[in-house]
Amino acid sequence: MSFTEQYAKYQYFLTSSPAPYVAHVQINRTSKLNAFKEAMWLELRTLFQQLSSDPEVRAVVLSGAGDKAFTAGLDVTEASQNGLLNPDGNLDGARKAARLRRHIAEFQECISAVEKCEKPVIAVLHGISIGLAIDIACCADVRIAAANTRFAVKEVDIGLAADIGTLARLPKVVGSFSWVKDIALSARDFGAEEALRVGFVSQVHESKDKAVEAAVKMAAFIGGKSPVAVQGTKEVLNHSRDHAVEENLRYVGIWNAAALQTNDVQAALLSGMQKRKPTFEKL
Amino acid sequence: MSFTEQYAKYQYFLTSSPAPYVAHVQINRTSKLNAFKEAMWLELRTLFQQLSSDPEVRAVVLSGAGDKAFTAGLDVTEASQNGLLNPDGNLDGARKAARLRRHIAEFQECISAVEKCEKPVIAVLHGISIGLAIDIACCADVRIAAANTRFAVKEVDIGLAADIGTLARLPKVVGSFSWVKDIALSARDFGAEEALRVGFVSQVHESKDKAVEAAVKMAAFIGGKSPVAVQGTKEVLNHSRDHAVEENLRYVGIWNAAALQTNDVQAALLSGMQKRKPTFEKL
Amino acid sequence: MSFTEQYAKYQYFLTSSPAPYVAHVQINRTSKLNAFKEAMWLELRTLFQQLSSDPEVRAVVLSGAGDKAFTAGLDVTEASQNGLLNPDGNLDGARKAARLRRHIAEFQECISAVEKCEKPVIAVLHGISIGLAIDIACCADVRIAAANTRFAVKEVDIGLAADIGTLARLPKVVGSFSWVKDIALSARDFGAEEALRVGFVSQVHESKDKAVEAAVKMAAFIGGKSPVAVQGTKEVLNHSRDHAVEENLRYVGIWNAAALQTNDVQAALLSGMQKRKPTFEKL
Amino acid sequence: MSFTEQYAKYQYFLTSSPAPYVAHVQINRTSKLNAFKEAMWLELRTLFQQLSSDPEVRAVVLSGAGDKAFTAGLDVTEASQNGLLNPDGNLDGARKAARLRRHIAEFQECISAVEKCEKPVIAVLHGISIGLAIDIACCADVRIAAANTRFAVKEVDIGLAADIGTLARLPKVVGSFSWVKDIALSARDFGAEEALRVGFVSQVHESKDKAVEAAVKMAAFIGGKSPVAVQGTKEVLNHSRDHAVEENLRYVGIWNAAALQTNDVQAALLSGMQKRKPTFEKL
Amino acid sequence: MSFTEQYAKYQYFLTSSPAPYVAHVQINRTSKLNAFKEAMWLELRTLFQQLSSDPEVRAVVLSGAGDKAFTAGLDVTEASQNGLLNPDGNLDGARKAARLRRHIAEFQECISAVEKCEKPVIAVLHGISIGLAIDIACCADVRIAAANTRFAVKEVDIGLAADIGTLARLPKVVGSFSWVKDIALSARDFGAEEALRVGFVSQVHESKDKAVEAAVKMAAFIGGKSPVAVQGTKEVLNHSRDHAVEENLRYVGIWNAAALQTNDVQAALLSGMQKRKPTFEKL
Amino acid sequence: MSFTEQYAKYQYFLTSSPAPYVAHVQINRTSKLNAFKEAMWLELRTLFQQLSSDPEVRAVVLSGAGDKAFTAGLDVTEASQNGLLNPDGNLDGARKAARLRRHIAEFQECISAVEKCEKPVIAVLHGISIGLAIDIACCADVRIAAANTRFAVKEVDIGLAADIGTLARLPKVVGSFSWVKDIALSARDFGAEEALRVGFVSQVHESKDKAVEAAVKMAAFIGGKSPVAVQGTKEVLNHSRDHAVEENLRYVGIWNAAALQTNDVQAALLSGMQKRKPTFEKL
Repeated sequence: MSFTEQYAKYQYFLTSSPAPYVAHVQINRTSKLNAFKEAMWLELRTLFQQLSSDPEVRAVVLSGAGDKAFTAGLDVTEASQNGLLNPDGNLDGARKAARLRRHIAEFQECISAVEKCEKPVIAVLHGISIGLAIDIACCADVRIAAANTRFAVKEVDIGLAADIGTLARLPKVVGSFSWVKDIALSARDFGAEEALRVGFVSQVHESKDKAVEAAVKMAAFIGGKSPVAVQGTKEVLNHSRDHAVEENLRYVGIWNAAALQTNDVQAALLSGMQKRKPTFEKL
Repeated sequence: MSFTEQYAKYQYFLTSSPAPYVAHVQINRTSKLNAFKEAMWLELRTLFQQLSSDPEVRAVVLSGAGDKAFTAGLDVTEASQNGLLNPDGNLDGARKAARLRRHIAEFQECISAVEKCEKPVIAVLHGISIGLAIDIACCADVRIAAANTRFAVKEVDIGLAADIGTLARLPKVVGSFSWVKDIALSARDFGAEEALRVGFVSQVHESKDKAVEAAVKMAAFIGGKSPVAVQGTKEVLNHSRDHAVEENLRYVGIWNAAALQTNDVQAALLSGMQKRKPTFEKL
Repeated sequence: MSFTEQYAKYQYFLTSSPAPYVAHVQINRTSKLNAFKEAMWLELRTLFQQLSSDPEVRAVVLSGAGDKAFTAGLDVTEASQNGLLNPDGNLDGARKAARLRRHIAEFQECISAVEKCEKPVIAVLHGISIGLAIDIACCADVRIAAANTRFAVKEVDIGLAADIGTLARLPKVVGSFSWVKDIALSARDFGAEEALRVGFVSQVHESKDKAVEAAVKMAAFIGGKSPVAVQGTKEVLNHSRDHAVEENLRYVGIWNAAALQTNDVQAALLSGMQKRKPTFEKL
Repeated sequence: MSFTEQYAKYQYFLTSSPAPYVAHVQINRTSKLNAFKEAMWLELRTLFQQLSSDPEVRAVVLSGAGDKAFTAGLDVTEASQNGLLNPDGNLDGARKAARLRRHIAEFQECISAVEKCEKPVIAVLHGISIGLAIDIACCADVRIAAANTRFAVKEVDIGLAADIGTLARLPKVVGSFSWVKDIALSARDFGAEEALRVGFVSQVHESKDKAVEAAVKMAAFIGGKSPVAVQGTKEVLNHSRDHAVEENLRYVGIWNAAALQTNDVQAALLSGMQKRKPTFEKL
Repeated sequence: MSFTEQYAKYQYFLTSSPAPYVAHVQINRTSKLNAFKEAMWLELRTLFQQLSSDPEVRAVVLSGAGDKAFTAGLDVTEASQNGLLNPDGNLDGARKAARLRRHIAEFQECISAVEKCEKPVIAVLHGISIGLAIDIACCADVRIAAANTRFAVKEVDIGLAADIGTLARLPKVVGSFSWVKDIALSARDFGAEEALRVGFVSQVHESKDKAVEAAVKMAAFIGGKSPVAVQGTKEVLNHSRDHAVEENLRYVGIWNAAALQTNDVQAALLSGMQKRKPTFEKL
Repeated sequence: MSFTEQYAKYQYFLTSSPAPYVAHVQINRTSKLNAFKEAMWLELRTLFQQLSSDPEVRAVVLSGAGDKAFTAGLDVTEASQNGLLNPDGNLDGARKAARLRRHIAEFQECISAVEKCEKPVIAVLHGISIGLAIDIACCADVRIAAANTRFAVKEVDIGLAADIGTLARLPKVVGSFSWVKDIALSARDFGAEEALRVGFVSQVHESKDKAVEAAVKMAAFIGGKSPVAVQGTKEVLNHSRDHAVEENLRYVGIWNAAALQTNDVQAALLSGMQKRKPTFEKL
């Protein structure tokens, strides 16, 4: 079964392979500016679990389909109808809370699948990239933006604190807490240049196409390296974000006690000496 | 009782309401460059506790009174006389330590009241802003500076490590640990532009007045939004700073299980559709 | 015994005192671009332990010897021969892992000695500064670069995740996680200007000599201040990086309960009033 | 659909409802002393997820089917064949490690479903209860034993450290670390009386039947109480085990901010005054 | 002013000094089985803050007044009237939650004052000791019981999870998590012997009077020792409960760096050699 | 070189091998009731580092030499002379504190070497076992006592809080915090039966000789098992003590990803089937 066929089953995501070992995933609900409904985040989880364990994939690019939006965030109409923002009025407050808690926990877990994917994920932000767009982008490893991107942590404007990951991850993704508070409390828009200046994105390109091209190039570059080294680096950096230095040193020590038992080190060293590109076994 | 009357009882702080739901607090001991003595930090705690639970307040602007200083920090002369830097010489080292520990703990708690205030606090730094000025500014949510601000983590120059919060919060407020170490170890001055470049402040304005104006504008903008959403966002972001991602996701999940049971979501959605400004109940 | 004589015993490090209370350490294996073999990191530990407790030293500058490199990182040839990358093939996987774990733990501990040194360490990066150079630089307090510095987190290119501290510390040293992931996953080079922009280094100078000069000047400036205040500030800031705000406030409170019982506060205050340079007792 | 029918789909677990709101789950592979193979732990996860959200269930009793064993632990033969203990020999050490890590993580997650079940779980240990039996029992809330139970943390005797939860949870389940080390390092058997003395189990009964009877009675007793109160208590106690006191106080505060908005408090208070048994709505 | 006079201002607590350096506090609302209303826990906080800093007090005994109860817990009638269990029905769920959260936080802080008291507190449990009695007892350092004590973690029976500290502290106070879950989920009574067996209390005496006598004797014994040593031991043990071993070792190291600078060590050593009782300065 | 010869170099410790893979270490300064001076704890560290990496050792028994004492703790006379309890009187309080802090840190590190030893350590307590005896015993994995043991956490009686590990570890070693506070605050004696009842020791024997015999037997039993399994179990249990359950599950998962790649599993399974004692390769 070809790569495309293996990923053809998803209704809301287009997946192609623009370069060896690279998967390009597009959020695909263009009629609604790629806004998310429940079926989509459930599908997102399954998709990224598949990518995580697919040995043919070593790096992932994630963008929106179409020109208008990465995603306009939560489909508020659908969420209201499903009781995601407002459970059955006959329940008492504690019982409503239990339902909401379970909904939120599952929603969070679905989006976190992007972070838990063992392979690096490069998000390409473009056009409208608000609300859930930020939650998802924070789960990616590297962020690249098109010049026309319109970002916003929009949740305050619909009466709630962002609960799908933006508030958990954004303070650890950029350096200025003053800026994080500013944009999260005010829900104001910001553009690609501002995102670059504060370190939220690593590159800005003139158009979505150029941004995708740059992301695919980076993904292909990373995809050519030892998957043992790359995936270990992602795992250990994510652990580092959440742990003290001593904890992380202990963790990487036991991680590498196994990871160094790889043929990739020798392959990398040899090809380095021979000035040729190494090849690495599947992982 | 009018807003002004309710806050008239404080001796060292002027409090006014320049816009709906906005309180503007000024540190007011201009004869001493707004330097702090013990009565002031005790009063600061009471004041911010009052602001925290006042339903008429949804955002706070904090500046110095007068043109010269946000604050010149600790009033060293007063501190020496009160034994804050030097307890009674007849005590043994352990007993001196016990007194100092209690003093420091109370001093810290007073300044932390700015951070614990449930409403966003926007600090306007201007003129001399050294020592305790940095401790206080780090407790605010957003920092805005006048162009003439002269910042310094000054404590090393009086023979001590800053113990009222600067060393605890500054590494989490800006992104460059190299810069934090540089200014904290050397106690050197830095200006508004440098503060902006490293992300310590979010905006620089040509004068104190312009900076206050910008801060009041931001406060009024935030004050027009759902207080449930805004206060939840502040709380969850502060929790995020100090916890791993998984911990914060769990926390915001149970927080929002109650917070989503608000009328503000519907009010926000409706007014969004109707292109009008929503109003929200007191909190 | 003169300062130079006390530090003459190290084979791979040159140590001089270019200014009062300042030690300048140079990594000295110029024939191999200052690449590290096991004897060197063991020696590095001993050297920084000595500096840590030497009352004549109040600040340390660390650079490479020669013009070409701070260090080219691990001496891979030597590491391969010593089984550091590849233990005895006759052992089973668990036993290989035990050996690797012990090796890594000791290697980490040696490099961490730079961080544990009680005195501030200013690293001067120049020329080739890859792999282990980043691990070491992250242990320093302040980083200064020469314009010609060629940085890279190179480990992925030899098939492994960096395990000597880069992944543990770098996310806490700079503000943009997107940038950290980019350079760590791709192992790409970056230069001094990029390092400055993201906050990895605090200053860039046109040449190694100018950079060393600036570092020595900063070290001498810090060396003139109260060692009680400076060393406390370093300790508390490193604690802050790894702990929640409340934890660090408690820690600095008990730290200063002893540290404030110093004559340095009075000395600093008096000399401040008398506009003269204070002198401080040994520590 | 009747209760029994809803739970009839599981191949390796029998589920009945011996009392209102009580589910009794029996591990059912008696031909192999209820030893676990992979299909069983996958099924266990699904089963406990169903119990967790089934409003007809307010407490769960978990025992083995048959007289001989709660469970004899991992089915080692099956595990060897499936590569759970020994992945494909052609892989290098790092790639074997990646497979093992994923296997272990999924296995752990399946067993942890018993702990994550929102309803209290009472484990009845009887007969052979070794290896995985301890991992599972540690996930339960209360443990009750038959007098004939033969316990052992058996993993060391098959050459491995217990990795499915015993070592993570047992030190937090009983008070004597000396005893935990003793039985875990030696893999020796211990009986019901010893388990009672150290607090691993709460009750010992003369036979499996009596033990099940006591467990059902306790489950029915708990099942008669407010599910809001009971499930909140379970959640907060499990949080407490893993967090500092201050953290847990903050957590229970926001938990109860929603949970107290229940009709159950009034129902409980009223029925208390009226000396009758309260009824509570579904949760 | 005599000791009694200094503590005469409290309405709900009787405080006497039955031995040198010992304070005996009695919860005094016998008409209601010493049940707590809001004014009482506010007073409890102030009282224990005073005891904490009173140099005449080196150990505290805490019991109920009268024969019937330590305390019957929360005064549910009063709590219902004050909206502590049920805020104003016109508020939406989020706004109710905010009020409840603040109430709970303040209530917790008041009870935690017993734990934060710098002097050891010995609780004497007797008669009815349910609900809040357990919260308070868990804040004490040592627990002693009269034979007639009737304990219960009663909260589940009024429809809520205990939120004033029992669930946070009890798992760290006794060794059997199975027992903690049993009594907390079932809200069943247990007696003094059971409390002794699981380690919740350290001694059981035949009557309240005997138990108080034993507590006063222990308090007087501790009160005769170095207050620097005793208060440091309390502080470090409480820190230990909530921190990893390495963290606590670091903490006690900097604590004792000041505490060892006491004359008490010499006084203790000398009096040890001279076989006489040492005297220690105030703290 | 024979086993005895390899360990003959230690002046204060006798080391023999009473059974295959078992080392028996005796604290040997009988003239002073095995009280510790600085040279002894430095030697203890070196000795346990050697035991930790000696492939001929798989379990360690630690007792005192002679009949009178495990150890009477710190040699207070020597400590006073060395300034360990009282640094040079000419230093100011901050400088004294720095010296004390370094002393304590090194002392702690030496004693922690017993815990860090990769092989299980069984402590045999007998006779006088006070002060440092408890610190050391808490570092051991299993504790066995002679009936005549006289235990005390004695530090309060010499005017200080125990800072070498007792306060850090004891609350995690036994289940009753009330008991820990009682003995630590009062410094009172307790005997072997009490130690057994609270779970501090696992066995009590009528004499030191019988206790040593039982310890050697346990050590030999453990020494006959897979060292991969045993040492992994020790490591993971110690990690468990200091980490939340989720953290430990993640840790043991990556630990076993390497450890399961051992021949020991097959050896253990085969010998199990063949009813013979397995042999395991060195580790």
